[in-house]
Amino acid sequence: MRFVIIGGDAAGMSAASRARRNDPELEIVVLERTDDVSYSACGMPYNIADPDRPMEELVVRRAEVFRRKQNIDLRTGHCVEAIDPAARTVSGSVRGGERFVEPYDRLLVATGARPVVPDLPGIDRDGVVFLKTLEDGRRIKTLLAARGVARVAILGMGYIALEMAEALRSRGLAVSMVKPRPGLLPWMAPELSAVVRARLEAHGVELHDGRRVERIDSEGDRLRVVGPELDLPADLVLAALGVVPNSEAAAEAGLELGPSRSIAVDRRLCTSQAEIYAAGDCADAFHVVTGRRVYVPLALRANRAGWAVADNVCGRPTELDGVAGTAVFRVFELEVARSGLTAAEAAQEGFDPVAVSIATPSRAHGHPGGDRIHVQLLGDRASGRLLGAQLVGVEGVAHRIDAVAVALHAGLTVARFAQTDLAYAPPFGPVWDPLLTAAHQLLKLLERGS
Amino acid sequence: MRFVIIGGDAAGMSAASRARRNDPELEIVVLERTDDVSYSACGMPYNIADPDRPMEELVVRRAEVFRRKQNIDLRTGHCVEAIDPAARTVSGSVRGGERFVEPYDRLLVATGARPVVPDLPGIDRDGVVFLKTLEDGRRIKTLLAARGVARVAILGMGYIALEMAEALRSRGLAVSMVKPRPGLLPWMAPELSAVVRARLEAHGVELHDGRRVERIDSEGDRLRVVGPELDLPADLVLAALGVVPNSEAAAEAGLELGPSRSIAVDRRLCTSQAEIYAAGDCADAFHVVTGRRVYVPLALRANRAGWAVADNVCGRPTELDGVAGTAVFRVFELEVARSGLTAAEAAQEGFDPVAVSIATPSRAHGHPGGDRIHVQLLGDRASGRLLGAQLVGVEGVAHRIDAVAVALHAGLTVARFAQTDLAYAPPFGPVWDPLLTAAHQLLKLLERGS
Repeated sequence: MRFVIIGGDAAGMSAASRARRNDPELEIVVLERTDDVSYSACGMPYNIADPDRPMEELVVRRAEVFRRKQNIDLRTGHCVEAIDPAARTVSGSVRGGERFVEPYDRLLVATGARPVVPDLPGIDRDGVVFLKTLEDGRRIKTLLAARGVARVAILGMGYIALEMAEALRSRGLAVSMVKPRPGLLPWMAPELSAVVRARLEAHGVELHDGRRVERIDSEGDRLRVVGPELDLPADLVLAALGVVPNSEAAAEAGLELGPSRSIAVDRRLCTSQAEIYAAGDCADAFHVVTGRRVYVPLALRANRAGWAVADNVCGRPTELDGVAGTAVFRVFELEVARSGLTAAEAAQEGFDPVAVSIATPSRAHGHPGGDRIHVQLLGDRASGRLLGAQLVGVEGVAHRIDAVAVALHAGLTVARFAQTDLAYAPPFGPVWDPLLTAAHQLLKLLERGS
Repeated sequence: MRFVIIGGDAAGMSAASRARRNDPELEIVVLERTDDVSYSACGMPYNIADPDRPMEELVVRRAEVFRRKQNIDLRTGHCVEAIDPAARTVSGSVRGGERFVEPYDRLLVATGARPVVPDLPGIDRDGVVFLKTLEDGRRIKTLLAARGVARVAILGMGYIALEMAEALRSRGLAVSMVKPRPGLLPWMAPELSAVVRARLEAHGVELHDGRRVERIDSEGDRLRVVGPELDLPADLVLAALGVVPNSEAAAEAGLELGPSRSIAVDRRLCTSQAEIYAAGDCADAFHVVTGRRVYVPLALRANRAGWAVADNVCGRPTELDGVAGTAVFRVFELEVARSGLTAAEAAQEGFDPVAVSIATPSRAHGHPGGDRIHVQLLGDRASGRLLGAQLVGVEGVAHRIDAVAVALHAGLTVARFAQTDLAYAPPFGPVWDPLLTAAHQLLKLLERGS
């Protein structure tokens, strides 16, 4: 059997490697557009922070290792342009030149996502950069090293924008951030996002939220980000406005699309064509709280979906429960995490959401050090079910959110979650874990309402 | 109604405070043997580590605050010696003198636990100390300050013994630890306890496990811990050999006892006498994995059980699920955590336990810093159920265990746990969380066996 994979990043190479482990005989062909495969894209901001670390440190396994040690026919520089489900072939060109047509028995579309390119005059100027591929990362590092960059403007205030703000500040650069809608991290409870904002401002990051950008001008080597109430000089402009799935070839081949034009897959990662799978940042997933399709392009899901495809292709039927929408990032000293739904999402999905926000010490009474930890917990008035959580603090956030993620997978009520036997020792939290304190307060609100 | 509480520590004062919040009219009497109420006992080793911090920092709320602000009739120095369920009275003496008899409508026995006193000649010598009450802590600090202590011998190698070893080393003292049975933390997977042992030894703690102590001799101000293969000079000897429940009065009153002579309670915290409750370190609990009674005297359970008693006394029927056996402690740079059953416990409870141990980096590929994180995960071959976990590492252990605790409460299988959407960002772990990597490996073993 011939298993063809379009895309050699997290989902694609996870699938290829696991398929090989499952079946030493399977013919595995990976067609990758760029020259890079299997790297830690999420690590790029931290790598960019350090001028002395080569970007190559982020490569998990090099192409020749896949070829030689795993007998995977990995072809870089191969851009797939069309999928023909009737003929069971994919076709495209090698670096825009020589054409190829490859037959498949099973196909995995793991084409990933690409940065949103805003429709702005000047977005194509030299010195305007994006950060998605390793090549993007190399380009940014080269520009930072060569160009005498002192000021960077970032369009967007999402995870990557914030991680890059930290990275650039740590290199001593002036950083300003712009976005059209008011509010930093609008999905967060305002009292929590205020904590993040204060920390960014304390580190000298200029925040211009609620400011529309009209164009990017240039003056010699320098750029200006210009809008009705905005005129930011910058040596470098980073556009970090989110991603869109690379689903065009799939859509043209007639595959069904899900939210945000991601490729719709079932729990087996099968698309609307039985022999075609999709995984990674081009595909959707079921949300474990709502049971509905969502587009949450994150690394764990990509790897996990790649594995599941390999198992299904190799005759080991595997279904994935879905995603809980868990995410964490660091920005300066703060850890910021979420899992589950936000209040707005919950209301939209037909729940009757009730939220509680608390701040408690991050260590036990009388224990030296620590700081405050901020928790928002969300429950459903009708069912009593736990719907989601958000956490912000300088310690104890990144892994504490996992307790919520597991509770969401298990469908626990707030009442049952409030009874869980979470770990306690003075250096790590109060006797009543902040999650339990929040759960108890939420429980009171839920009971009051019923 | 008159609610009498024996014991003014975690369980007792939690119950008193919550009962007052529930019912402003309730007559609440607390009879406490010592002069201290409501303090963070778990914080004592960290306080002892710092000569300049007064022990009083650990007091959460002082007795007069309970009396004045919460209208709780809190009587310190009151030692209850007998419970008469037929007459519904408790009786005892005030500081060994004046007798008292107090009637009750509802009684909470929250008498806590006391340190195990080994049957050793010389255990009563001056300079041999225990650590359970705040008064014990004060005594140790006074001795450390006044006595010119340079060498401490610790009998026992449990949580408190290890926390104290760190505290004493941080004060520059020589520390040796002794226990009769071989093996540090024998409940741990050997490959994990080896990590703890290496760290203790790196910090100059002398470990004498598998050495019997016969007696404690004295030479002037100095002590010697002596056994067949042992002769340890010490200025101070700390006996930290675990605790036993203070259940004698309850037993004499005819209340049923559970494991380790703890007071048996149902899910409502009721003893075998309907109007008598028990909570805290004197009482047992149901284990959420086995459903059986266990004695796990830890702080969160004590507080939670106190609350549940107050709710039940005040006509708000409340049942507790039980404990997952979650515990965490820090020893030097290491975080050590567990939840659920050990392999030995699981076998004893009739499961068919299968264990896997892994060590993975604590941060993502290519991310600077971090260390290894060691995970042991345990599942049941017959049911596929997750049974327990143990973690050791310099970061990411203390809260990561909570994901396991929640999974145990929810009764998840290893397969479902392996699908959970745990948080990922490069500073906090690999894409595949160590718990997920362990779950996948455990799953393979479980499948192979079936």
